[in-house]
Amino acid sequence: MTNYTKIGVASGARTELHDVLGLTGAEVSVNELPAGASVPFVHAHKKNEEIYGILAGGGYAVLDGEKVDLKAGDWLRVAPATKRQFFASEEGIKYICIQVKAGSLEGYTATDAII
Amino acid sequence: MTNYTKIGVASGARTELHDVLGLTGAEVSVNELPAGASVPFVHAHKKNEEIYGILAGGGYAVLDGEKVDLKAGDWLRVAPATKRQFFASEEGIKYICIQVKAGSLEGYTATDAII
Repeated sequence: MTNYTKIGVASGARTELHDVLGLTGAEVSVNELPAGASVPFVHAHKKNEEIYGILAGGGYAVLDGEKVDLKAGDWLRVAPATKRQFFASEEGIKYICIQVKAGSLEGYTATDAII
Repeated sequence: MTNYTKIGVASGARTELHDVLGLTGAEVSVNELPAGASVPFVHAHKKNEEIYGILAGGGYAVLDGEKVDLKAGDWLRVAPATKRQFFASEEGIKYICIQVKAGSLEGYTATDAII
């Protein structure tokens, strides 16, 4: 495995980073929904925790039937079994989605770093 | 474990999400370095892959002694053992850092989702 990989992500509906960066601990996608659009299905996960970060615009998620408003700067953790769907406001929404195996993190920062 | 957690991240030098969101598969931090500043140390990791996403501004990383330019929209995977340090340009830099255990991801997207 190389010591690093890098790519530039242009605007677009969805860019998936796992394969292009050779990720081994996560899938990360950069997503844009235009004004009034939605992800066209409800989904949940078997093992993966999802972490969403809203980069621009806004909208809302429906999580197990509960509407949760989202705006730029918001970060959201969604448990694997939670049923989720995402909707853009009239300004559209740009967000990242991080998939990781729930419970997989051992140490981090001070307990994993070597300085 | 609750089905979801959410917080808003304001501007600031560093916001760590692991504890406030109850993350179990990653640590995610949102970081800002002002113009000309740098992370004041070189570090590597024991087990964790790091994924950096540049949200605004620019700068560069030094990865095992190699200078790698960074600008908004760039995404970077850094292997655990790689020695790394980050520097802001004259416009400053805003970036996220995702720590995950290298090799921990099993399925993702189509192989982990339930629709």
